[in-house]
Amino acid sequence: MTTSTDPIKIATKKEAEEFFNKFDTFLFDCDGVLWLGDYLLPYTKEFLDKLNKMGKKVYFVTNNSTRARASYQKKFKAYGIDVKIDQIYTSAFASAIYVRDFLKLQPSKDKIWVLGESGIMDELETLGYEALGGTDPRLNEPFDAKTSPFLKDGLDPNVRAVIAGLDREVNYHRLAVTLQYLREGEDKVSFIGTNIDCTFPQKDYIVPGAGSIIACAACSSRREPIYCGKPNMNMLDSIISHAKLEKSKMCMVGDRLNTDIKFGYEGNLGGTLLVLSGIETEERALHVTEEYPRPSYYVGKLGDIYELIK
Amino acid sequence: MTTSTDPIKIATKKEAEEFFNKFDTFLFDCDGVLWLGDYLLPYTKEFLDKLNKMGKKVYFVTNNSTRARASYQKKFKAYGIDVKIDQIYTSAFASAIYVRDFLKLQPSKDKIWVLGESGIMDELETLGYEALGGTDPRLNEPFDAKTSPFLKDGLDPNVRAVIAGLDREVNYHRLAVTLQYLREGEDKVSFIGTNIDCTFPQKDYIVPGAGSIIACAACSSRREPIYCGKPNMNMLDSIISHAKLEKSKMCMVGDRLNTDIKFGYEGNLGGTLLVLSGIETEERALHVTEEYPRPSYYVGKLGDIYELIK
Repeated sequence: MTTSTDPIKIATKKEAEEFFNKFDTFLFDCDGVLWLGDYLLPYTKEFLDKLNKMGKKVYFVTNNSTRARASYQKKFKAYGIDVKIDQIYTSAFASAIYVRDFLKLQPSKDKIWVLGESGIMDELETLGYEALGGTDPRLNEPFDAKTSPFLKDGLDPNVRAVIAGLDREVNYHRLAVTLQYLREGEDKVSFIGTNIDCTFPQKDYIVPGAGSIIACAACSSRREPIYCGKPNMNMLDSIISHAKLEKSKMCMVGDRLNTDIKFGYEGNLGGTLLVLSGIETEERALHVTEEYPRPSYYVGKLGDIYELIK
Repeated sequence: MTTSTDPIKIATKKEAEEFFNKFDTFLFDCDGVLWLGDYLLPYTKEFLDKLNKMGKKVYFVTNNSTRARASYQKKFKAYGIDVKIDQIYTSAFASAIYVRDFLKLQPSKDKIWVLGESGIMDELETLGYEALGGTDPRLNEPFDAKTSPFLKDGLDPNVRAVIAGLDREVNYHRLAVTLQYLREGEDKVSFIGTNIDCTFPQKDYIVPGAGSIIACAACSSRREPIYCGKPNMNMLDSIISHAKLEKSKMCMVGDRLNTDIKFGYEGNLGGTLLVLSGIETEERALHVTEEYPRPSYYVGKLGDIYELIK
């Protein structure tokens, strides 16, 4: 799975210019690349403005399922960055699209149980689905199967899928009800995971990610989900078909080898850029392994490239 | 890993009598065998009384870490069953013993971070260790790394192990702080899991077990714990050395193939009895696989044997 050539560290102005000349479209992961939680990394806005001025096309492809696309647009706006909603692809959006286009569930009839935050709920509701669970405050009550409003009258027979993702309100009540739906079996209730990321990097510390929450649901149910986020190719196919882009001129920029770089590599994009501002180290970027591909380029953080070309 | 002979279903008085004649010591799993949550299965007390009258030795070997041994003794007492504390072995007790005898942590100095319930805290404290986390009510507050009393002044440098088990108060605060300790690395902070059971059978429903909570911590930290509960042999070694028992005359009784039956099988006990009142089915009991051993005997529930011999 490794690329044949060694990753190039972008360290000079010439290398930075060659990098920009090679691509006309950039796909950006967000957490760990543009920001860490609520902390905008240095020169993120300037870097994106520069790409705009150079006439490059830009998309944001994030495995973060906690916000809907509309909410992401607001987050960008708060940082002074104007982004159109169809430039944004999230694992919550990809999961909702999967429910509609692959599972062919019917909005007026079929429901979805959510172990996750409002991003998943909102995207499902935008497509007309009734989402159960998720942020429902009744799930904040201690779990008791006899009194839980989600169990005392039996499971909702119209639930046809479980979508699980990062849930910072996770508790035993949510996990226990999710398990009851998963125990209905594959034929009746599909199991979708938003993304495999086991951690969620913030400024100065790292907290558990979607993959860790999903691991709990997978273990208890003895089931494996279908993952809709990177490195699944669904999002790439959507972007390309939407905008008629040429893969060889596209570069995926991300902070994770097993999702972002794998996504670009398996999607046969022209190149990949790993930034070390998130979860990975230079050692892992250079290390040849079967577990994940190496990037074509790497750099400490996006701002380092900006400083070379500003 | 399969036993060479087909499992015998105990269905006649003669089979039941042969079963009792073969063994002088019985090790019982508790959840799914004697009771389901707070529901005592039929004839549990009568069955144990009968064994007493027959002069059999009885031990209770449970992977349930939510109660300390003293609390288990009270639970038995509430059902009218008299049990001595040294007849009870739990995964919380085994984990505390592991901390003392294998890790050689020092009670006056070294501390243990707990992702789990009072059973683990209590057993550690009985051995003189300071247990952090666990049932501390400050962990019920929403997680914020900047204000969490467990993180704002840094990690406690005296924490030398994390013990994770079933935690029905699990939340993101507990998971996030646990991750920070696990990220300290193997050399500094050992990672112990009480037991691998992914589910926890109750009457009429099944909820997530210790293994599912531990899976979350393992995924986020990219670490694998040492498991102290069944099928780990530590508990068996303790029981045998304590009471000078002969393995060939011992029978392990449980409701799980991958823990109870494996424990008896790998411990070279005289036999194993699977009850189907917990998590397993007759189909799985008879199925030959590399994943888990088959039992020597099986029966619907303990009460069925009692009804044959009463």
